[in-house]
Amino acid sequence: MTPKTTFFDLQTGFAPETESVSLKRSLSTIKSIFSNQEKAEEILSSEDRLVYEFYDLGIPEKEGNIAYGTSILYPGKVGDEFHMTKGHFHTILDTGEVYYCLKGHGMMMMENPEGDVEYREMRAGHSVFVPGRYAHRTINVSDTEVFVTFFAFRADAGHDYGTVESKGFRKLVVSDGQGGYKIIDNPKWNSI
Amino acid sequence: MTPKTTFFDLQTGFAPETESVSLKRSLSTIKSIFSNQEKAEEILSSEDRLVYEFYDLGIPEKEGNIAYGTSILYPGKVGDEFHMTKGHFHTILDTGEVYYCLKGHGMMMMENPEGDVEYREMRAGHSVFVPGRYAHRTINVSDTEVFVTFFAFRADAGHDYGTVESKGFRKLVVSDGQGGYKIIDNPKWNSI
Repeated sequence: MTPKTTFFDLQTGFAPETESVSLKRSLSTIKSIFSNQEKAEEILSSEDRLVYEFYDLGIPEKEGNIAYGTSILYPGKVGDEFHMTKGHFHTILDTGEVYYCLKGHGMMMMENPEGDVEYREMRAGHSVFVPGRYAHRTINVSDTEVFVTFFAFRADAGHDYGTVESKGFRKLVVSDGQGGYKIIDNPKWNSI
Repeated sequence: MTPKTTFFDLQTGFAPETESVSLKRSLSTIKSIFSNQEKAEEILSSEDRLVYEFYDLGIPEKEGNIAYGTSILYPGKVGDEFHMTKGHFHTILDTGEVYYCLKGHGMMMMENPEGDVEYREMRAGHSVFVPGRYAHRTINVSDTEVFVTFFAFRADAGHDYGTVESKGFRKLVVSDGQGGYKIIDNPKWNSI
């Protein structure tokens, strides 16, 4: 392949000139990831809502390539739970990923199959390296600002959403009722 | 390993809080890469000069990991040739690298062992994917502004400077005498 140039706006994350369109995740398509299903249905009964979008530039999925792009996570809550991405393991489990925050205030939530939970707060300029074996999702903990990251990972890593989709992550990030956030146990993980 | 957080200033590229210090390349240590050796010696007879610096965070060199950081390339010329990095092949030749420009105006110069030459201009917001098999260097084509990029590659890729160090790249990026740049053949590649 030949070198590829793509412009990603450093403030908005948008890549208006690329032939790749962003992949959009509206609430209706990912409602199951949120803890409060009644609230999700209530929102959807009046309007659908864009939760996040990200770019997949179609870099060939070879082990020597790097896939990269931006992720744009809109502010909002479903009940008291902040907007977040679906989250995924890599199919090649022991492959990492780096995220570099361009704008906003968010959280990287991570957990491995052994149940170790890690999370890191991110603001503009913060990079987080997610080591291999960790499922990861980003969460926008701002009520007003978009959370924008630039990400890069081995192009053949693959995405495994299944494990995360059934039970979610072990921890939830919810409003503390005072304009901030708090991290609580996911009740789905506590139930038998 | 556990997740790693590092703050890289989005304007300057500096990571003031990390335990990793940036690796500094002054003119005295890389003078051989410039075409005009007399001019390099002349500059060095009165002062040394920082040409670029970059961060190596020490991410373990495993095939599943991503190494990343910022590169900060200062404006300046040696004769009519712009400041640039040494440039390198990856030791695992067929591994790519992505660069995302945070600030400035520069050039990604690339060539593979077969002699194919590619170059891409970069300004803030431009990403360039350097495919595997391509030696690559960045060049700051601004006379006044720092050129800052965020880079990411497979952590076990390795750096092979040797091939490039002996003859340089096939093309040079030099001043056009009117505030811009032009790309010319490297005389070292034309000689027998």
